[in-house]
Amino acid sequence: MTQGTVTTPKGFVAAATTAGIKPSGNSDMALVVNEGPEFNAAAVYTRNRVKASPVKVSREATSNGQLKAVLFNSGNANACNGAQGDADAREAQARAAEHLGVAADDVAVCSTGLIGELLPMDKVRAGVDVLVGALGDNGQAAAEAIMTTDTVSKQAFVQRDGWSVGSMGKGVGMMAPSLATMLVLVVTDASISNEALQQALEKASEVTFNTLDIDGSTSTNDTVIVMANGASGITPSQDEVDAAIMEACQSLADQMQGDAEGVTKRVSITVRGTANNEQALNAARTIGRDNLFKCAMFGSDPNWGRTLAAVGMADAEMDPDNISVMFNGQPVCVASTGAPGARDVDLSGMDIAVEVDLGTGGPGVATVRTTDLSHSYVEINSAYSS
Amino acid sequence: MTQGTVTTPKGFVAAATTAGIKPSGNSDMALVVNEGPEFNAAAVYTRNRVKASPVKVSREATSNGQLKAVLFNSGNANACNGAQGDADAREAQARAAEHLGVAADDVAVCSTGLIGELLPMDKVRAGVDVLVGALGDNGQAAAEAIMTTDTVSKQAFVQRDGWSVGSMGKGVGMMAPSLATMLVLVVTDASISNEALQQALEKASEVTFNTLDIDGSTSTNDTVIVMANGASGITPSQDEVDAAIMEACQSLADQMQGDAEGVTKRVSITVRGTANNEQALNAARTIGRDNLFKCAMFGSDPNWGRTLAAVGMADAEMDPDNISVMFNGQPVCVASTGAPGARDVDLSGMDIAVEVDLGTGGPGVATVRTTDLSHSYVEINSAYSS
Repeated sequence: MTQGTVTTPKGFVAAATTAGIKPSGNSDMALVVNEGPEFNAAAVYTRNRVKASPVKVSREATSNGQLKAVLFNSGNANACNGAQGDADAREAQARAAEHLGVAADDVAVCSTGLIGELLPMDKVRAGVDVLVGALGDNGQAAAEAIMTTDTVSKQAFVQRDGWSVGSMGKGVGMMAPSLATMLVLVVTDASISNEALQQALEKASEVTFNTLDIDGSTSTNDTVIVMANGASGITPSQDEVDAAIMEACQSLADQMQGDAEGVTKRVSITVRGTANNEQALNAARTIGRDNLFKCAMFGSDPNWGRTLAAVGMADAEMDPDNISVMFNGQPVCVASTGAPGARDVDLSGMDIAVEVDLGTGGPGVATVRTTDLSHSYVEINSAYSS
Repeated sequence: MTQGTVTTPKGFVAAATTAGIKPSGNSDMALVVNEGPEFNAAAVYTRNRVKASPVKVSREATSNGQLKAVLFNSGNANACNGAQGDADAREAQARAAEHLGVAADDVAVCSTGLIGELLPMDKVRAGVDVLVGALGDNGQAAAEAIMTTDTVSKQAFVQRDGWSVGSMGKGVGMMAPSLATMLVLVVTDASISNEALQQALEKASEVTFNTLDIDGSTSTNDTVIVMANGASGITPSQDEVDAAIMEACQSLADQMQGDAEGVTKRVSITVRGTANNEQALNAARTIGRDNLFKCAMFGSDPNWGRTLAAVGMADAEMDPDNISVMFNGQPVCVASTGAPGARDVDLSGMDIAVEVDLGTGGPGVATVRTTDLSHSYVEINSAYSS
């Protein structure tokens, strides 16, 4: 994957600043602006019924498939702040729009950080004023300004013949002390309709972000936005769009899994042999969310009995007497019974592949990626929030 | 609650022995025998599709509502052992039955311990032979012999006018390194039909064992059996039966929650204000299984935002803008917005009460009991299994 940022594709500029929202003094606001000529956009948002104010505002903004800018802040999620939270999100949106000379609903807003604290609006206003005066080739700085407990910034760049896709992301699921949220922005200078963008984004999200399940928690703020401006003059086919956006999302999801809080193992769980892909996904998720399974992974313990006990509770068709499990390609359970040498399989490496066949002969297959449950996870997530 | 064991009610005898199944050298087999004159029985078993061999055998044995004895072993779950596991469970059942001069299907068998290891049948055979020769007033010893990582034996005794209920239990959910299973035996010398017993047991399980959700895991071996022999000559009403069995189950569930692996907090989560009790239970379970919520409890952190983020994913009707949360009786979130002083609520004690109103005005209400997610939980559950 070539190097590049969200300001590498033609016609996108960005800025980042330290508005003082984060106590750490790290940068905490960013603005990415699409200079056109087209302003097609698509987005997917958290399925959580409790939605942060910026999610409500951005859903409205992207509902017409058009977007000219995205304003980010880290350090405060602006979630569970009632009517004042909504008003604050709208004020930030309107202020950025006014500076940029666009309509308010041309601007989406994304927040990540502590839930239940009002945005410090004096700092946010001053931050917006700085950002609009500092726009340029600052994709790297923007990617850094949206980090919360991320230890590295996350970007993915896809170069095609005459056009490209830049992207940045942060976080994964809800992982840190109330520092919620996965935020992703994907931009491209190809000419792509908003319908085609939405299709590509949903297809990519389904098998990347939606199958990345670190702790079963879903943020109030999760947002993925894609913008296309046609500045390259190239109109790729839907297949080409799908492939490029998939590639960027896949890379960001990989980076998120690798940087998950407290991770000592990257675990991929593939389930097959059930009625359909949805049931396979249910089963893979059920295993990936089982704390006993996750603790075993932390302990490099080839304890396949926990895999069977976990999957037995999944909403998926299975033959309870014909389930097979492989760890790192080695059979540890065949026909629901231990395989010779199962306890000696080496799981000491960082990557563990778990394959489960539910034994019905059905065509369903799905993969979920997760991590182990470590002391560090507990440590990070039990620290006092205030 | 008066003191008493499973051999305190008239007409029940028990024995315990050290067969050598546990590496620790602690006692690991027990037998409880109903001497009649009646042999009515009821049972509930794990909902896990992956069922241990003793669960399959005992389901058959209790299907006619009659039972004369229950044979227990700890240290080995006899789960995921294929046809050999089934054969071993049947052999143990038949051997006990032969010694007792009863039919094989008059004996239930219960196992708890490591999944995926064959029972050491030479030790089991010798153990059965010892047990049948040692029957007497050994309820306490039987309760100790079924312990795995339990730190204390668990018994509950209910004295009524002329009749009584004795009970013993072990474990809770799946909590230890492959040492699975909740096992419970309840006995009474009242005269109660098997239909009445089944009704009382299901009613009691619903609000005691089934709402005790430590880590969301469900064992392959979970079994609750109740036997009634009428030796007291007293026939209580259904209401009296329901109440007495409820009281015993409630006490055992309390003891299990208090002895859960790695527990530093006992957390009760009550949800109301949704369409019906089932939805309230879904919502309470969703909160109780959320690792971020559980880590906050471990940290004594009144981080109500995590409660909202967790419940927002629950399969329950809610008004996302009108959710309220109380910690230990103090409002921390009102109408989905932080309450004054919310961050200062004291959660330093061992017991934490969480009350959530989903704001729809609906009549649903349910309570789930869980524990925190501590370093100790991770430590215990990541230790190597073999």
